[in-house]
Amino acid sequence: MKYILITGGAGFIATHLIEVLIENSGNFIVAVDNLSMCDDKNISKFYNKANFAFHKVELTNQHDLALIFKQYDFSLVYHLAANSDISRSFTNPSIDYNNTFNTTWNVLEQLRINHIKQFIFASTSAIFGEVGENIIDESFGPILPISHYGAGKLASEAFISSFAYNYDIESLIVRFPNVIGEYSTHGVIYDFINKLKVNHTELVVLGDGRQEKSYLYVKDLIRAIQCAWDAKVDKVDIFNIGGIDTINVSEIARIVVENIGLGSKISYTGGDRGWKGDVPKFSYDINKILSTKWIPKFNSKEAVELTVKSLIKEIW
Amino acid sequence: MKYILITGGAGFIATHLIEVLIENSGNFIVAVDNLSMCDDKNISKFYNKANFAFHKVELTNQHDLALIFKQYDFSLVYHLAANSDISRSFTNPSIDYNNTFNTTWNVLEQLRINHIKQFIFASTSAIFGEVGENIIDESFGPILPISHYGAGKLASEAFISSFAYNYDIESLIVRFPNVIGEYSTHGVIYDFINKLKVNHTELVVLGDGRQEKSYLYVKDLIRAIQCAWDAKVDKVDIFNIGGIDTINVSEIARIVVENIGLGSKISYTGGDRGWKGDVPKFSYDINKILSTKWIPKFNSKEAVELTVKSLIKEIW
Repeated sequence: MKYILITGGAGFIATHLIEVLIENSGNFIVAVDNLSMCDDKNISKFYNKANFAFHKVELTNQHDLALIFKQYDFSLVYHLAANSDISRSFTNPSIDYNNTFNTTWNVLEQLRINHIKQFIFASTSAIFGEVGENIIDESFGPILPISHYGAGKLASEAFISSFAYNYDIESLIVRFPNVIGEYSTHGVIYDFINKLKVNHTELVVLGDGRQEKSYLYVKDLIRAIQCAWDAKVDKVDIFNIGGIDTINVSEIARIVVENIGLGSKISYTGGDRGWKGDVPKFSYDINKILSTKWIPKFNSKEAVELTVKSLIKEIW
Repeated sequence: MKYILITGGAGFIATHLIEVLIENSGNFIVAVDNLSMCDDKNISKFYNKANFAFHKVELTNQHDLALIFKQYDFSLVYHLAANSDISRSFTNPSIDYNNTFNTTWNVLEQLRINHIKQFIFASTSAIFGEVGENIIDESFGPILPISHYGAGKLASEAFISSFAYNYDIESLIVRFPNVIGEYSTHGVIYDFINKLKVNHTELVVLGDGRQEKSYLYVKDLIRAIQCAWDAKVDKVDIFNIGGIDTINVSEIARIVVENIGLGSKISYTGGDRGWKGDVPKFSYDINKILSTKWIPKFNSKEAVELTVKSLIKEIW
């Protein structure tokens, strides 16, 4: 029996990851989460599985975390826990210092203390900040995040690297793009639907609608993580994960309004970004992950359409 | 009167920086240090200056740090405080988590809270880890530090970037190479002299002596920081600072033994590095700083010779 820990285990992406990992009866999956960003609704469906356990744990508390590592003999840790609302830390950067960075630091200390040798980290394209027209492969630099969330993830990557080299921890850093799909609890589609619940007649979009990003369907992401892990060569190996195309915010707004079907008007606040820390245009080089067997099954627009339909069922 | 804060203010590099800044009577220099890595011997010579004050402050304590920022209306902060002994955190990585990274986090929070708009950070070539034969300019990536010290500095750079963009702080990141000169309190020359004090007959060198690095004379570094600040363009601008050539550990050992003049034998423990986390061979691209008016006055060998002579006077 292989014990696998998933932090941020009640979250959107973790739910999909657990769904896949739990199918292998040789795995025992332990999910931990402080349930600050969501409840346990999405993962409660696993409670009747013999090879699954959930524990409510505050990851910023090293002592509480240590108890879980004492209880199970983990051989692999997926660290997904982080602040998932990038914009809210503008007035309070300690949100990302604590929930995005210090959670990683605490997990790394447990890996070291408990001699755990396999680690997979959910990083982000937000580490890159504003890159203009540059093509961003895994060797792109300088890395100058403009959000505290991106900074917390880059700071995490830094210590993952030194821990990997000093304590021989096989570490995979997968940088996630915007990931969407069933059970998502934040992000632009989730926000648009919630706005329309309050105001049926008008959807007010932050910015000018031209922010252009790549969206990846969550099940494509889960496959990418597995392919990256199988293809991993270096002690610390980094993979940019992303969609093969982009979609702009206007198009997303149009798809949401069309699917809700109330004929709501779309208006824009103007400006080239939704909030300070938002990156208006972004696409990055995913040739490294594409050189594995992986290719996304859905493009950005298809991922948006799938997500809009499922979120309308979930939260409308 | 312009109030300037220097953290790590009792340390080796700060001493030389203060010496230059204090000459301008329009500056009031406040140095803070917890005196954990050194005493106040080097800076006590400034105590009789009208435009200088020293405070013993624990930078890892946000509350204590806040008091200093309340007492003075700083317009510029040089953040030099950090763990200065890279190898000792192998068994206790929280040394660099606290002293190299959290000190930066705490200073950044004070910049934000007190609306301070100018910041200069002492980063390091150690952020880069093992880079093989790569040429490392400021855009080099991926950045995978192998020491916790390098990780703490890279993590600092990450949050400096997000703070700079979110709170309009003009930030300069200067990546230091091995810096040597009068008053240095650690590093290979300091260690060799101390070893020979204990054992006159034999100097045992860690590794095979072929570790090859660039050494910069401290007064050249201080001029480089000023030139980089004057040449700064972007909100966050990064400059690699380094010598124009390298020197290997064998040659340093030879110069130390020759200057002490006891005919001590030099032997080697073997292996390609002094300790886990040491990078055996390193040189990086300094064209960006060389494109300013700056050029080092001393090459690596001259810097070593100057330092050996002054350290023999200070500690032999």
